[in-house]
Amino acid sequence: LRSALSWRLQAEFRRGASSSAFAPLDLFYKRHTGSGNPEANEKMLQVLGVKSIEELMDQTIPKSIRTTRKLSVGPKRAESEVLAELRQIAKQNELRRNFIGCGYYGTIMPPVIQRNILENPAWYTQYTPYQAEVAQGRLESLLNFQTMVGDLTGLPIANASLLDEGTAAAEAMSMCAAVSKRKKLRFFVDKDVHPQTIAVMKVRAEPMDIELVVDNWQQVQWDGADLCGALVQYPATDGTIHDYTSFVENAHAHGTRVVVASDLLALTMLRPPGEWGADIAVGSAQRFGVPMGYGGPSAAFFACRDDLKRLMPGRIIGISRDAQGKPALRMALQTREQHIRRDKATSNVCTAQALLANISAMYGLYHGPDGLRAIANRVQRFARTFAAAVGVGVSEKAAIFDTVRIDYPTTEAAQAVLARCDAAKLNVRSLGPRSISVSFDETHTRDDLQELVSAFRGPQRPCSGEELEQIAASLPPSGFGGLEPNLAQAFERTTAYMTHPVFHEYRTEHKMLRYIHQLAAKDLSLVHSMIPLGSCTMKLNATSEMIPVSWPEFSLPHPFTPPEQLRGYQRLFADLERDLADITGFAAVSLQPNSGAQGEYAGLMTFLAYHKARGQHQRKVCIVPTSAHGTNPASAKMAGMRIIPVGTDAQGNIDIAELRARAEQHRDQLAAAMITYPSTHGVFEEGIKEICDIIHTNGGLVYIDGANLNAQMGLTSPAEIGGDACHLNLHKTLTIPHGGGGPGVGAIAVTEALAPFLPSHPVRPVASAHPDTAIGPIAAAPYGSASILPIVWMFVKMMGSDGLREASEQAILNANYMAARLSPAYPILYRGKHGRCAHEFILDLRPFKLSAGVTESDVAKRLQDYGFHSPTMSWPVAGTLMIEPTESESIDELDRFCDAMLMIREEIRQIEQGRWDPQHNPLKYAPHTAEVVSADTWDRPYPREIGAFPASWLYARGKFWPRTSRIDDVYGDRNLVCSCPPVPEMMHPSTTGSAARSGTDEGRVRTAVASS
Amino acid sequence: LRSALSWRLQAEFRRGASSSAFAPLDLFYKRHTGSGNPEANEKMLQVLGVKSIEELMDQTIPKSIRTTRKLSVGPKRAESEVLAELRQIAKQNELRRNFIGCGYYGTIMPPVIQRNILENPAWYTQYTPYQAEVAQGRLESLLNFQTMVGDLTGLPIANASLLDEGTAAAEAMSMCAAVSKRKKLRFFVDKDVHPQTIAVMKVRAEPMDIELVVDNWQQVQWDGADLCGALVQYPATDGTIHDYTSFVENAHAHGTRVVVASDLLALTMLRPPGEWGADIAVGSAQRFGVPMGYGGPSAAFFACRDDLKRLMPGRIIGISRDAQGKPALRMALQTREQHIRRDKATSNVCTAQALLANISAMYGLYHGPDGLRAIANRVQRFARTFAAAVGVGVSEKAAIFDTVRIDYPTTEAAQAVLARCDAAKLNVRSLGPRSISVSFDETHTRDDLQELVSAFRGPQRPCSGEELEQIAASLPPSGFGGLEPNLAQAFERTTAYMTHPVFHEYRTEHKMLRYIHQLAAKDLSLVHSMIPLGSCTMKLNATSEMIPVSWPEFSLPHPFTPPEQLRGYQRLFADLERDLADITGFAAVSLQPNSGAQGEYAGLMTFLAYHKARGQHQRKVCIVPTSAHGTNPASAKMAGMRIIPVGTDAQGNIDIAELRARAEQHRDQLAAAMITYPSTHGVFEEGIKEICDIIHTNGGLVYIDGANLNAQMGLTSPAEIGGDACHLNLHKTLTIPHGGGGPGVGAIAVTEALAPFLPSHPVRPVASAHPDTAIGPIAAAPYGSASILPIVWMFVKMMGSDGLREASEQAILNANYMAARLSPAYPILYRGKHGRCAHEFILDLRPFKLSAGVTESDVAKRLQDYGFHSPTMSWPVAGTLMIEPTESESIDELDRFCDAMLMIREEIRQIEQGRWDPQHNPLKYAPHTAEVVSADTWDRPYPREIGAFPASWLYARGKFWPRTSRIDDVYGDRNLVCSCPPVPEMMHPSTTGSAARSGTDEGRVRTAVASS
Repeated sequence: LRSALSWRLQAEFRRGASSSAFAPLDLFYKRHTGSGNPEANEKMLQVLGVKSIEELMDQTIPKSIRTTRKLSVGPKRAESEVLAELRQIAKQNELRRNFIGCGYYGTIMPPVIQRNILENPAWYTQYTPYQAEVAQGRLESLLNFQTMVGDLTGLPIANASLLDEGTAAAEAMSMCAAVSKRKKLRFFVDKDVHPQTIAVMKVRAEPMDIELVVDNWQQVQWDGADLCGALVQYPATDGTIHDYTSFVENAHAHGTRVVVASDLLALTMLRPPGEWGADIAVGSAQRFGVPMGYGGPSAAFFACRDDLKRLMPGRIIGISRDAQGKPALRMALQTREQHIRRDKATSNVCTAQALLANISAMYGLYHGPDGLRAIANRVQRFARTFAAAVGVGVSEKAAIFDTVRIDYPTTEAAQAVLARCDAAKLNVRSLGPRSISVSFDETHTRDDLQELVSAFRGPQRPCSGEELEQIAASLPPSGFGGLEPNLAQAFERTTAYMTHPVFHEYRTEHKMLRYIHQLAAKDLSLVHSMIPLGSCTMKLNATSEMIPVSWPEFSLPHPFTPPEQLRGYQRLFADLERDLADITGFAAVSLQPNSGAQGEYAGLMTFLAYHKARGQHQRKVCIVPTSAHGTNPASAKMAGMRIIPVGTDAQGNIDIAELRARAEQHRDQLAAAMITYPSTHGVFEEGIKEICDIIHTNGGLVYIDGANLNAQMGLTSPAEIGGDACHLNLHKTLTIPHGGGGPGVGAIAVTEALAPFLPSHPVRPVASAHPDTAIGPIAAAPYGSASILPIVWMFVKMMGSDGLREASEQAILNANYMAARLSPAYPILYRGKHGRCAHEFILDLRPFKLSAGVTESDVAKRLQDYGFHSPTMSWPVAGTLMIEPTESESIDELDRFCDAMLMIREEIRQIEQGRWDPQHNPLKYAPHTAEVVSADTWDRPYPREIGAFPASWLYARGKFWPRTSRIDDVYGDRNLVCSCPPVPEMMHPSTTGSAARSGTDEGRVRTAVASS
Repeated sequence: LRSALSWRLQAEFRRGASSSAFAPLDLFYKRHTGSGNPEANEKMLQVLGVKSIEELMDQTIPKSIRTTRKLSVGPKRAESEVLAELRQIAKQNELRRNFIGCGYYGTIMPPVIQRNILENPAWYTQYTPYQAEVAQGRLESLLNFQTMVGDLTGLPIANASLLDEGTAAAEAMSMCAAVSKRKKLRFFVDKDVHPQTIAVMKVRAEPMDIELVVDNWQQVQWDGADLCGALVQYPATDGTIHDYTSFVENAHAHGTRVVVASDLLALTMLRPPGEWGADIAVGSAQRFGVPMGYGGPSAAFFACRDDLKRLMPGRIIGISRDAQGKPALRMALQTREQHIRRDKATSNVCTAQALLANISAMYGLYHGPDGLRAIANRVQRFARTFAAAVGVGVSEKAAIFDTVRIDYPTTEAAQAVLARCDAAKLNVRSLGPRSISVSFDETHTRDDLQELVSAFRGPQRPCSGEELEQIAASLPPSGFGGLEPNLAQAFERTTAYMTHPVFHEYRTEHKMLRYIHQLAAKDLSLVHSMIPLGSCTMKLNATSEMIPVSWPEFSLPHPFTPPEQLRGYQRLFADLERDLADITGFAAVSLQPNSGAQGEYAGLMTFLAYHKARGQHQRKVCIVPTSAHGTNPASAKMAGMRIIPVGTDAQGNIDIAELRARAEQHRDQLAAAMITYPSTHGVFEEGIKEICDIIHTNGGLVYIDGANLNAQMGLTSPAEIGGDACHLNLHKTLTIPHGGGGPGVGAIAVTEALAPFLPSHPVRPVASAHPDTAIGPIAAAPYGSASILPIVWMFVKMMGSDGLREASEQAILNANYMAARLSPAYPILYRGKHGRCAHEFILDLRPFKLSAGVTESDVAKRLQDYGFHSPTMSWPVAGTLMIEPTESESIDELDRFCDAMLMIREEIRQIEQGRWDPQHNPLKYAPHTAEVVSADTWDRPYPREIGAFPASWLYARGKFWPRTSRIDDVYGDRNLVCSCPPVPEMMHPSTTGSAARSGTDEGRVRTAVASS
C-alpha cells in the first residue's frame, strides 16, 4: 500500500510524526502499556501514596544509577506505519531458489498448521508447561514429538527438543564426557560433519578441557585413541551415506560412545542409528514443516539409549497420573530441575524450541509415516535424477538421499558452474575449490531441477523436462533396495516407525484443525488471563509484531545465503544491534545466542577471550551470588570457570563484605562476577555500583544477567550500573513470545573493549563481528533465530525511546501496586530502601505451611481454579511465589488476580480457624476438573461451587477448566514413560471413533439400534 | 518464492503435474475430502451393500440426468502450487493511493482483530446463531454492533447488519412502501445519493410498482407529491452536508417516511439523523475496520424508529432469559422467520454480514467513542486542509467531513487535473466533465496529501509539508462548532454516543485479545465438531483458501478503481466465470449477488428481461412448489411475480400432474418455475426433466435453486437437468465460510439466451456483461463481495475436475452411510427410487412427540450436551431434523454424530418405557451448563454425569460447554431489548474488575485484607 512512499519521505515523516497535525493515530504504545485509560495510573499512584510516576521511580531506583541519557531509538510510532516500513525492508531480501543444504532445507508448512499454531496466540503465548494441569495440550504434542523422534532414530528415549543441531551435538559431547571415567577427555568428530556443528563443538570443547579431534572416521586408530565419544554424520554433510557398523563396533569395544548426527526425513528410508549401535542421535527437525528462517528458530532433536536418560539435557515429557489415578502428562525428572544443577551442571540448556517442536510433530502427524516416506522418495528422486543428468563428477550408483556432491577436475570448471548458477539465481554450496554440492527438498519442482541441471551442464547441453522424466523412469526404486546387495543391506530401513495410531489419524484438514484446537483448549495462555510469572516477563506479544514472522522474505532464506542477497536482513540486524546497544548502554551486540543461558555462556566466553588477549589466561574464577539463576553457575561451569559463591544479607541483598573478601582473595584469578539486576529478589540493590567497582578493581569483569531488563529500559542500564556485558532475553522484555517453552533469543551486549570478541561464524561471518579476534559460534546459525528478530524490531520501533521507558515505569508501577494490595494478606519478602520492589516481588507463603499446612504448590494449583496461571513457584526462595505483572496488564486484570489471591488467603484462614479440614479442603484438592465437580458422587466437605467457581467472574467470563486433577510427579519419575503409550484411547481418545467409545456408550448405541 | 517461475513454465508444469515423476505431493483434494484413508469408504460402501461409489451413484442419480461430460476446470493440484499461482495473479493488481470515496474508504483493521477474528477459524467457521445456547459469543458482539449503530444514528432499533448500503436503502424503500396506505407508490431519492445506491433502488423499485423519483431534494413540491418515502444522503455523495430539518418536517406533514443514508464515522461529529426526524437510517459500516475488498464483503447497517421494528429486514439480536431465569441472547422475532414469509414477504434478505459486522463492532470497541471521534477529526482535517490548499473551486467555509468537491470553470481544466493525478498514480473521483471529488480516510498520510495537492495545483504551485502544517494550524476546531453559528447549530453533534461500558473497556491489545477469545470460546464452530446442517453445506473452509483474503492486493482495492489497474482481479473473475459455468453447465455467470436470495432475485430479473426482450411483458407467473425454500416465493414476490404453488406427492416429490395443470392453466402468463434440485427433501427426483419440459412447453423458464449443488458437481448439472438459470451459494458448496451468519455470495449462472441480461453496474460496468441489454445492479459493487472470491478460485483450482466430482460423490456417500446407521432408530423421510438419499436426508421425530413427548427441539438441544450443533430443525418439514454431512467429514466424525443420535434415541426410550419422567429428564433440561451441573444443589431425578457427560468421548476430547440453559424465545420477543442492557455486568461481566465482583467476592476480599 505504502510502496509508493519513498524512503526519504518516510524518514522525514517519521521525524515529524509526533508533532504533525497529520500524524497517524494508531500509536502502538497505548495498546501495549497500561490500562488504556489515564485514571487507572492515577488510582494506582494513590494507593501507593505517591504523586507521580517520577516520584515512584525516585523511591525505587537508586539515584546513583538513574540515567540522564534519553534513549535514541526514535519517537513513538503507529503500528500501520512501522509495519509498512518493515515491509519495505523485507522486500530488500531477494528470494532465490536454494539448493544449499548443509542442515537447512526448504519445507512446506501445512497451511492449517501455520494459521492455527504458528499464527495462533493460544499456542504462541503459552509458557513452559510447568503447571502441567493447565498444559496438557502442548504436553501431548511434545510427547508426539518425542515418540516420532524415538521411532525415526531407533532409540528409546527422546527429549522435547533442543536449540539447534550444533548445540545438540555439543550437548551430546558433554554427555559422553560426563559418563566417561577417563581423566583426559578426547572426543572425535568426523571431518564430514556439517562445518557449523564442528565449529560450535570446538568452542564448547575447549573450556571443558575436551580435546576435539577432527579427522576422517575411516582412519581412526582405535588402539590408544582413548576417546570418550565420537560423532559421525549420517548422511554426511556432502550427501555421502556411510556404513558405520564396524566403526560403532570398534568404538564400543574401546569404551567410546557414538553420537550420530542425522536427518529425520532421511531416516524414513535409512536404517536408523539405534539399530546399528549409536548411543545418541542428534539433528534438526527443521525440515519437518518449519521454514528455514535464515537459520532459526527450529527444533533440534536428541535421542539416546535408556542408560543415558538421566543425564539427558533439556526437557523430557513423561506420563504420570493425577489425583484421580488417571494418566496425565508433565515434564519428567523436574525434581533435579533437569540438568541445571548450578555448578554441578552438565549443561546450561533451559530453553527448548517447544513451538517449533510442536509444529514439527504436527507435520509428522499430518503426513504420517507413509506421507513422510513419499516426501523422502520424491526428494531422493530429485537427487538421483540430478546426479544422472549431470553425469560428470558424480557416482550414479552411490547411496545418496537428498544431496549430490560434484567434483570437478579443475578449479576453473567448478567456478564456471558456480558462475552459471549465480547467473540463473540458483544458490548452491561450494565444498571447496573443485567441489560443489546441491541438496533437494520438498519445495523443489521439476522446473527448478531443469534449470539447475541446465546451469550445471552449460549452454551446450540443454536439459528438457522430458529428459528428466525419462531419467526418473529409469531410476532404481526409491530407498536403497535397488542398489547393490551390500548397500541395500546396510542402508535400507526395514523396521516400521510412527506406528502409533496418533500418526495415522490426522490426514484431513478438518481432523487436523480440530486436533490442534482440542489441544489448545487444554492450555492456559495469555489469551485467557495474565501469567504473572516472576522473572519471565509474560507481556503482550502484539499481533503487529508477529505478522512479519510469516512473511516469506523473512521465513524462507537459507542461513548460508550470500549476505548481498539479503540486504533487508542486514538492515534489520544493524538496526537491532544499534538499538539494543542503546537500550543496554553498551557498545556492541551479538544476536546469535538462542537462549538466555546461551547468552550467558557467550558473554563469559568473550570475557575469557578478552583476558587471554591481555595475557591473563589464568583468570578463570567467577563469583556468583547464591541468589543467582541456576543457569549462571551452569554457564560459568561450561565456560571452564571456577565458581565462588557469595551469599546475601538479611535484606536479600548481595553480601558486599563477603563479595569484597572473595574478590580480593582471588584477585589474580578473578575473571568475572555474574550479577542479576534488579536482583532475583526483585529489588534495585543500592550497592550495585560498589559491587561492580570491587570486581573491576580486582581485575574481573561484570556480567549482568538480563532477565530483569524490563525494569530498566530508559531508567538505567546494565552499562550504567557498571556492567561489562549482559544478555537480553528477547523472549521476555523484547516481546518474542514464549511459545509454550521456546523459542528464545539471548542476544548479548558488551562494552567497546569486549566487542572484538563477540562470536562470528565459520560459514557466513557475522557482519558486525571482528574477523581476527571473534570467538567461534555459540549457535549453529550466524544470527541465531533470525526469523523472529522482526518481532523485536517492530516492538522497539513502535514503542520508541519514550515508550520503552514508560513500559519499564509501568511494569514497576504495576508490581508495586500489586504488592500494596497483597501485602495486608501476604508477607512480601525483600524490598528496596524506600520499601519499593522493582518490576516483581516475592510473596512468602511459608507462614501458612505452619498455620494451615498450606504450601506454595497448594496456592499455585488453587489459582488454576480461579482461571490463573501461578506465579513463579519456590524460586528464588523456596516456599514463595514471585509475581511479575509486566506493563501490559490493565488495572482490572491486576485487581482480578489480587482478588483471587486475597480470596485464597481467606480460604487459608478457614483452615487456620478450623472451619475447613486441613486435608479435605479446596486448596488441597485443587485444581478441580469439570469431571470431578459434575460427578454424581461428591464426598468432599465443601460445596462443589467453591471448588470450581470460587469467584463470580468465572461464570461470566467463562471458566478455563484444568484438564487433570493434581499430578503426581514422583510416580511419573519412578515410572518413566516418555513416548505415546500403547493404548491409543488413553492419551489420544479421538484417534478412532469406535475405539474411543467406552463399553457403556457402545452398549447404549447397540441397544438403540437393536430396539428400534 | 516461486516468483522466478515464468507463467509459461507454470502452465506447462500444471498440465503435466499428475503424471510427472516430480509432481508435488501436497495435493489438496486428499485433505478436503473423506477420511484420509481408503478403508473408510470401503467400510461405508459395505454398510450400504454396494460395491463401488459408481454403483451408489447409479442408485442415487437418475440415469436420464447423469452427465457424460467431464468437468474442464483442470487436474487436481497441490496447495503450495496453486497458492503460488494466485500470488502471481494478485501481483497484477496495482495498488494506487485512493481518494475515490463514494461509500468506500480505506481503513486500518487493528491487527489483533485481523488475526483473531478474520483469520481465526473459530470465528469464521461459525454458522448463523440459530442455536443460541452455543452462540452467545457472536450474539454478544452483534448486540454491540446494534448498540453502536443505534447510538451513532440516534435511532432506537438497529439490526445486526444487511448486505451493503445499496440494498439496505432498497430495503428501507420496501419498508416505507409496506407501511404506506397509498395505492400508488412513489418514492423520492435525492440526486446526490451515491449513484450505485440509486441504481440498485431503481432495479428494485420497478417490479414492485414503485415509481422512483430522482431529483433535487430542495425542489420537492410537497403538495401532491404523494410520496410513501424519501431518501437523502448525509453527507451527500459529493461531500456536501445539508440541513434536512425542514425537509423532514415537510415529509412528515405529508405522510412521507424519511430514510437517511449516512456514514458512521461522520456521525461521530454530525447531529444524528434520529435527532432531526429520520425514520430510518442506512449506510455502510465498512470503514469501521473492514478493508474495501474491491467492493465487499462489508456490513451495511439499518436502524429505525420503534414503530417500524416489526417490519425490519434482516436479523435482530435481542435479550431474553434462559431456563434458569438468567439473561441470554438470541435472534429476536424468529417466530415470524423474520420477514421471509414466502409470498407475503417484504424482503428476501436471509444472509447478513455477521463476520464483518463483528469486525466493525470490535473496531468500535477498540477505539471507543473518543478514538472514533479522533479518527473523524483527523479525516476532516485532511479534507479541510486539502480544500484550503487547493483553494480554487472549493468553498473553504462549507460544512464538510471527509470529501471535497472541486468545480472547474472548464472541462479542460478538470481533465488536466485528472491527468496529473493519474500520472502521480492517485485515484480520484470524476463527478462530471468539470467536477472532481476527493475523499480522505484514516489510512492517508501527510505525504499522500502533499502529493495530491501537488497534483491538483500543477507544477507551477508546489506544495510542501510545512505549508500543509501551517494550513492545518489555521483551521477552525474539528467538527462544526467553529463555523458560522447556523451551520454549527445544524450540524454539531451534542449528544453522547457509545456510552455503554463495553465501549470503554478494550483499549489495550491484551484486553481486546482476551475479549475476542472469551467470546469465541462460547461459540460452537467447525473447529469443534461437524455441523450437519441440512441445506447449509458446512464443509471445510480450508486455510489455503482463506490465506489470500488477507493479501493487500485483494483486500485493499476500491470497487470503482479503473479496471486496467486490477488485471489480477479481472483474471480471477474471468477464471471463476468460466469454471462456474463449467460446473453448472451454463453459458455465463454473474458474480455480483451477495447472497443466495439475491441470486434468486437476480435470476428472476434476467428471466423477466428476457421475456420482455421477446415482447412477452405479460409473463409474470411463477410456479413455486410448496416444499421450496421460503426465499423462492419471497424473491418472486420482489420480482413482481404472481406465485402459483404446487404441492408434493406422498413420496415428497413435486406433484407433476398438478404442475402440468398449473403450467397449462397459466400458459400465456407463465414466466418461470423455481425448482430446488436435488429437492429440499434431499432426493434426486426422477421427474425433473419432465418438469422442466412442462415449463418450457408452456413458455416458462426454469430457475434451479442452487442450495443443493453440492450433490451435483461433475455428476449432473442444473443445465443438464433442464434449467435455464441457477444460483450457486458460494458460501456453501464453494467453501466460502459462513462467518457466523454471513458473508455469502450467490453468483448466478444462465444459458446463452439469458446471458445478455445478466446485471452490470452504473459506475464500473461488469466486464462480461452486455452493456446494451444488461439489467441494472443487484448489489452495490460490480462484483459483489469480490475479496472473498479468491476462496472459491483456490477451491476450484485445487480440487480440479475429478476432485469436485469426488467431493459430490463423497457427500452423497456420507449422507447415505449416516442414513443407514440412523434408520434403525429414526424414520427417514423421503428417499429416491432405489432407497437412496442425495447429500442430505430428513429424520422424522414426530413419532417421539407422541410416544415420549420429545420434540425436535429437545433433541437439538440435547445434541449440544454431546458437543454437536443440531441439524436443520423443522425445515422443510416441521417436526424433523435434516442432516447434511458434506464430503469433508471423516467416518470417525460421522460415527461419533450417529452414536450421539443413537444414544439420544435410547434416552427417548427411557421416557417411552416410563423409566424417566416425561418432564424431568435430560432431554427436557438440555442443554446443561457447567454452572448447573456443578451447583451444590441438584434436584433432578437423573445423575449429573448423564446431563453433561452423556458420552465418554466428552471427557477425553474436551467438553464444549453451552453457556446458557435453554433460552425462552417467547419471553424475549414479548420484551424486546436489542441493545446492550444498562447494567454492565449483566452482559459484559468483564467490563470492570470490581463491578464484576459479586457481593460475596467483595466480601471475601475485604475480609482477607481486613483480617491480615
